[in-house]
Amino acid sequence: MTSSELKVSETDAETGSWFPVPGETELPDGLRGLFAKVRARIGFVPNVFRVYAFRPERLSAWFAHYRQLHEPTAGLDAADREMIAVVVSSANGCLYCLVAHGAALRAELGDPVLGERISYDWRRAGLDERRAAICAYAEKLTVTPREVTRADLQTLLDVGLTLEEAWDVAEIAAMYNLTNRMAMATNMLPNDEYSAQARPDGGGGGMSGEA
Amino acid sequence: MTSSELKVSETDAETGSWFPVPGETELPDGLRGLFAKVRARIGFVPNVFRVYAFRPERLSAWFAHYRQLHEPTAGLDAADREMIAVVVSSANGCLYCLVAHGAALRAELGDPVLGERISYDWRRAGLDERRAAICAYAEKLTVTPREVTRADLQTLLDVGLTLEEAWDVAEIAAMYNLTNRMAMATNMLPNDEYSAQARPDGGGGGMSGEA
Amino acid sequence: MTSSELKVSETDAETGSWFPVPGETELPDGLRGLFAKVRARIGFVPNVFRVYAFRPERLSAWFAHYRQLHEPTAGLDAADREMIAVVVSSANGCLYCLVAHGAALRAELGDPVLGERISYDWRRAGLDERRAAICAYAEKLTVTPREVTRADLQTLLDVGLTLEEAWDVAEIAAMYNLTNRMAMATNMLPNDEYSAQARPDGGGGGMSGEA
Amino acid sequence: MTSSELKVSETDAETGSWFPVPGETELPDGLRGLFAKVRARIGFVPNVFRVYAFRPERLSAWFAHYRQLHEPTAGLDAADREMIAVVVSSANGCLYCLVAHGAALRAELGDPVLGERISYDWRRAGLDERRAAICAYAEKLTVTPREVTRADLQTLLDVGLTLEEAWDVAEIAAMYNLTNRMAMATNMLPNDEYSAQARPDGGGGGMSGEA
Amino acid sequence: MTSSELKVSETDAETGSWFPVPGETELPDGLRGLFAKVRARIGFVPNVFRVYAFRPERLSAWFAHYRQLHEPTAGLDAADREMIAVVVSSANGCLYCLVAHGAALRAELGDPVLGERISYDWRRAGLDERRAAICAYAEKLTVTPREVTRADLQTLLDVGLTLEEAWDVAEIAAMYNLTNRMAMATNMLPNDEYSAQARPDGGGGGMSGEA
Amino acid sequence: MTSSELKVSETDAETGSWFPVPGETELPDGLRGLFAKVRARIGFVPNVFRVYAFRPERLSAWFAHYRQLHEPTAGLDAADREMIAVVVSSANGCLYCLVAHGAALRAELGDPVLGERISYDWRRAGLDERRAAICAYAEKLTVTPREVTRADLQTLLDVGLTLEEAWDVAEIAAMYNLTNRMAMATNMLPNDEYSAQARPDGGGGGMSGEA
Repeated sequence: MTSSELKVSETDAETGSWFPVPGETELPDGLRGLFAKVRARIGFVPNVFRVYAFRPERLSAWFAHYRQLHEPTAGLDAADREMIAVVVSSANGCLYCLVAHGAALRAELGDPVLGERISYDWRRAGLDERRAAICAYAEKLTVTPREVTRADLQTLLDVGLTLEEAWDVAEIAAMYNLTNRMAMATNMLPNDEYSAQARPDGGGGGMSGEA
Repeated sequence: MTSSELKVSETDAETGSWFPVPGETELPDGLRGLFAKVRARIGFVPNVFRVYAFRPERLSAWFAHYRQLHEPTAGLDAADREMIAVVVSSANGCLYCLVAHGAALRAELGDPVLGERISYDWRRAGLDERRAAICAYAEKLTVTPREVTRADLQTLLDVGLTLEEAWDVAEIAAMYNLTNRMAMATNMLPNDEYSAQARPDGGGGGMSGEA
Repeated sequence: MTSSELKVSETDAETGSWFPVPGETELPDGLRGLFAKVRARIGFVPNVFRVYAFRPERLSAWFAHYRQLHEPTAGLDAADREMIAVVVSSANGCLYCLVAHGAALRAELGDPVLGERISYDWRRAGLDERRAAICAYAEKLTVTPREVTRADLQTLLDVGLTLEEAWDVAEIAAMYNLTNRMAMATNMLPNDEYSAQARPDGGGGGMSGEA
Repeated sequence: MTSSELKVSETDAETGSWFPVPGETELPDGLRGLFAKVRARIGFVPNVFRVYAFRPERLSAWFAHYRQLHEPTAGLDAADREMIAVVVSSANGCLYCLVAHGAALRAELGDPVLGERISYDWRRAGLDERRAAICAYAEKLTVTPREVTRADLQTLLDVGLTLEEAWDVAEIAAMYNLTNRMAMATNMLPNDEYSAQARPDGGGGGMSGEA
Repeated sequence: MTSSELKVSETDAETGSWFPVPGETELPDGLRGLFAKVRARIGFVPNVFRVYAFRPERLSAWFAHYRQLHEPTAGLDAADREMIAVVVSSANGCLYCLVAHGAALRAELGDPVLGERISYDWRRAGLDERRAAICAYAEKLTVTPREVTRADLQTLLDVGLTLEEAWDVAEIAAMYNLTNRMAMATNMLPNDEYSAQARPDGGGGGMSGEA
Repeated sequence: MTSSELKVSETDAETGSWFPVPGETELPDGLRGLFAKVRARIGFVPNVFRVYAFRPERLSAWFAHYRQLHEPTAGLDAADREMIAVVVSSANGCLYCLVAHGAALRAELGDPVLGERISYDWRRAGLDERRAAICAYAEKLTVTPREVTRADLQTLLDVGLTLEEAWDVAEIAAMYNLTNRMAMATNMLPNDEYSAQARPDGGGGGMSGEA
């Protein structure tokens, strides 16, 4: 096949990917194990795994790094770490990550209303000073990284983070700047399951035209 | 009281407003009727009404205009009109309108997954050509109105809208550029009820750190 | 007629509109009265009325809201309100509103030089602290509404505005974000008459190439 | 005086300058001649000369370059050259140049309405294809110079300019990117006389609140 | 120590870091081996390793992923991969990566002049169509990732890249969006050695004021 | 020749210019003298002279102004003036000026590492307070000139500049906003010689993929 015949794949029906999505049986053992494990735990395989599996070694390497960043610490818990993911994804406009990590954020916060608010505008979500400082830092490192100063870093220590946790805020924000771009470059779409997760009880029909 | 003593109100606990929120009994008859009617229909009074009621005549005038724009037509139905509201609110980053009209959009579409996707990124939401053209126009009129051309208007006719419906796309987009700014200037927060509305059945707990 | 035959109208010679401009006799009584009244008062019908009359009920609703916002108060007079209109229109780059409300601003200020300066750059126009605070707020609500804070609102009270007048600054700014976009979406052009209004006495020929 | 005592000058009452404005008698002969000549021709000395005279040799050097650029040619007349000045000044938001060269543009065009329109938005001013191409090029070279391509240059030849005239479009635009910044860095204000120049006959009072 | 006593570290004299820089002997075996190996090969330890070693496991995980991306393929050689690094770093304004990968790019290209040009403006560097397409894609994914489309991806296949190589362009660009932000968040400075690497022979003194 | 036959010139092989580049013998005496003098001093004729010579009188006028601005003073030496040139050129992304004045900056500083750093990011280059204030002012006047205030000017006096030197900072920055645009409009490329000038001793091969 000459290069001139190469075409971007048809959009994959389940994942949205513009790249070929390998069948699970074609994957290396390690990834099959990962897929099985996550399916057992949450009931489905997140599309990020299925799409990234076009390059299995890359998926393994990325995930080995990525998962370290979500390990909670005393001063930066699982919800805080998802919050950073969501704030960065909002600044970059990444559909996949906003839906998938929006669900995780609602779950980790135990507050579906607050989680949804952060995904649209952390400034008006009613966050306390500590979380607002974390969001402000993550957004600035995303949008105007050249302007990040030592004083910005100090704002994280001032609200009680350790140096290691301040580093984590930066590294999580940096990581989602990678992940968001992989999601958008491949056209990864979020699994439908996320939309239902961690919502308030007793919903209803919604309304229109009433403001 | 001299002007130098004036302070912005304490944030209103229920609505978030930075302006005084009048009690419902203090309102003119017309607005009390509106509040009663909407409460009967959806179970609560949207905060936009409660906050805007600081200026009752303004609320009446705004709402008289606003409600005309959500009347569906053959080629621009209720879902389409909510879609425009949501796309404009996303471009402006308006928390109130994204949550409130996000709920309405999910309900009108009858598709909670699609509605949520549009609220984060209409480009990757899988819209058909007609809806994508409407979103593109509404976003451009919001973000770079000076660059809107006759050719942009023609794109709406090309996907089947009448001249009146094309006008409606523009006027709804223009209206939400007003409404978004009133919401942000007053710090209006969405009622908690919206978060539960029109979500998929059978949600669950969400996950964290699994991508 | 099938939708594929729909074309944007020829640009209306008098108003610039890309939509059909109805003859005055075709209009509902209320609008004919409005047109007659304004013609009696200022000698012509502003193009915004003629263009918006493509949708007569919308024009009526919009104007009923809009006109409330220009009613002067002790702390926010007619010139101040036109100033907000002009500052928002400058930030959005709206030709129609800059010319039409530029004329009104010159007239209300009784200072043609200052009015013209504000239309190009309020920052260097030599405004007093009160007017500069109003302009800064209106511009910020237009350009970066998500970043408007409670502290921004307080700046309006600090220069002597009441809460109601501070609300008016926001609502006028929000309204012109609607109006500017309707003007640009329809390609409304300002009536020639505005250019002559409220200019200094004793003009002359101008010069070129002398800096 | 030690450097720590240095303060920016009081704003000069007549010119707005933040730098000392020399008296005319203190100037070198050449500049006194220039001032006398321009006063004889237009009745006043433009503030750009008075402000820039803080550095007399710089003023002479700048003006010797600048004036070459306003010499009309067959395909790029005096109005076209003022139009470029105004479009660049609009993109940069330079009050001084918009008022001063706005007056010159109205005069050279012999069309006060068109000249005013170009100063606010050349796109909607109804320009012919040749002038629109010139404005588009000048604006792009001002706002995103890195993205200017060979194809952009070709658009100027395509509407009939010679290579020399195309160069002039670029050099005039480049020059006003210098001049605008000198005006804004010094806080140069336009002479009041410009506001009256080349306006339509028979103005009047203006109106407010009628849209 | 209470959190309120935490302060950002003094800037590390050798690396610029705002975080503590561990001594090489304190590092885990794996990293000591890495440091020794790179020192043997190039004569010094790049500051990115020394700074990132504040979190040794993170450095190992990041580097395991990162190094995969620089493995050359038939259609995307080592120079191409450094070019992507440099274009992304230029768009983000990352001093560390521009200097360090600028050196690598000059070396891999075997063309010091071209390498330097790409670091300042790939558009004017005289790249062939293949490389220009790669740079355009990498820059777009960096600056406006939400707007990246299937058609953008196709441009990479059209100039002869395989699907795997097109993926690599995206993943390298995504990775440097992470790396750039870690460099800027930590204030990593490039080792002085880079400035001398892969420069043209026979330099000299330079000049000033001659344009 | 009719205008429709005009085409942009073939890119000049040596200078990159999209305009015809005159032979040196065709130039007026004054320019031939300038060319001879600069060639004697630095060994080659900078491409800015060769390209600008398409319009000999313009080149003479521009250079007569430009060269005044690089005359050192006690408080703003030759390196400082080149630094302003480089900071403005970086903000505008001008390849020609970054390479040519980057070389001059390295030479005048006598510090090749610092000079290179400034060309990529003056904020992280480790500048002292005086130079950082100069860079900040020059960048702001370039990027957001409308927002430059009297307080910005005062920052220059506060670090010890005289009023004349503060003016020079502004005028040099303004001048490079002209020069950058001429370079980009003509597609001027830097002479290869610059890349070798004022580099550190003892370079070497560079590396790739080691971060």
